[in-house]
Amino acid sequence: MAFRFTLLPASLLLACIAVFSFPSLHNPPRVSAQSVKTEQSKRFVPVYKADGDMVPPLQYREWTYLTSGFNMSYNPKASGDMSMFDNVFVNPESYKAFEATGTWPDKTVLVLESRGAESKGSINKSGNYQSGGTMGLELHVKDEVRFPGKWAFFDVASETKATLIPSKAPCYSCHAEHAAVDTTFVQFYPTLLPIATKKDTLSATYRKEMAQPK
Amino acid sequence: MAFRFTLLPASLLLACIAVFSFPSLHNPPRVSAQSVKTEQSKRFVPVYKADGDMVPPLQYREWTYLTSGFNMSYNPKASGDMSMFDNVFVNPESYKAFEATGTWPDKTVLVLESRGAESKGSINKSGNYQSGGTMGLELHVKDEVRFPGKWAFFDVASETKATLIPSKAPCYSCHAEHAAVDTTFVQFYPTLLPIATKKDTLSATYRKEMAQPK
Repeated sequence: MAFRFTLLPASLLLACIAVFSFPSLHNPPRVSAQSVKTEQSKRFVPVYKADGDMVPPLQYREWTYLTSGFNMSYNPKASGDMSMFDNVFVNPESYKAFEATGTWPDKTVLVLESRGAESKGSINKSGNYQSGGTMGLELHVKDEVRFPGKWAFFDVASETKATLIPSKAPCYSCHAEHAAVDTTFVQFYPTLLPIATKKDTLSATYRKEMAQPK
Repeated sequence: MAFRFTLLPASLLLACIAVFSFPSLHNPPRVSAQSVKTEQSKRFVPVYKADGDMVPPLQYREWTYLTSGFNMSYNPKASGDMSMFDNVFVNPESYKAFEATGTWPDKTVLVLESRGAESKGSINKSGNYQSGGTMGLELHVKDEVRFPGKWAFFDVASETKATLIPSKAPCYSCHAEHAAVDTTFVQFYPTLLPIATKKDTLSATYRKEMAQPK
């Protein structure tokens, strides 16, 4: 989940940003689509459209925070002119279920938000802070009956539209092959990895990867 | 708020970590002090002790996320062997009040959590992700009647104890002189800065700082 944007080479990343950034989400998304937000505010249930796309969860900044990464990449030589943060959130009911069980219930939605990183501003002189609006939003949705692999990815294109990513896209195979729990990158979620370890819900592929000499 | 830990030189930071890290918070804090957590879970109200210290909000990871920084420092030459993230949270009622007013209500509590940063792990080969337990926790508490300057800082020393930082400590003067809204560093909270700008709640000192040539 945390790696469709962040592990892409910088050039592809920029292409994604060009496609998926949208001014209306550069400030906190509210006001428009208010009825959807109100409907979703208590207990989130994914809402789909006739064409298979999804209505994005506009209230995700009020959901449970999982982690942030900085310039994460699976390319050892990754570099670019632009630095980025990614922040990951999950609907609160699913976070509580994970605490109890070590894995995700049906209807779980994880949100990956990308934001630009600045270095010099106000009193900050080195290191990086988050600034400006969102540069991309992606969803990872568990809906066991709806999706053949139980999960699907969506790119958020506007406040009312999240586009289904076809199941042959590389994010699906990467998550299936490398993610620690139920196709999600719990190895990068510091409050959840100890729970999954204790509850014995780590995937076989992740255990195998961890057992290999480094 | 986001800058007591993160803007300290690395050597001092390590000293802080030695003093304030505590194994019991390296996993999500629950179980013990459960009664306090239950009491605080619906609407947070600061609870103090006879000696002036405070009972830490154990449920802060379920609060509203504000931002994360990476190796932030007010030293242009800051460097160290260790990289760190800091994550900032606020009690949800105060976040909603800020959305409506552009400033913080009484009883607001911001939490600064520091975590170690790793680079190579699982499929990640460059950039940084958060790992392991908390390396420090600090609180910034607004209690207008209790504190002469309306706000106070606390260092969290254990699940049941947050130590009041004396008002002559440099964090107080730095926040007073440089923070964008009501002594808090809203200039580093990307969803809140546009609201404060629109609501015209930016501090005079911050406006002056922003007006200076760079």
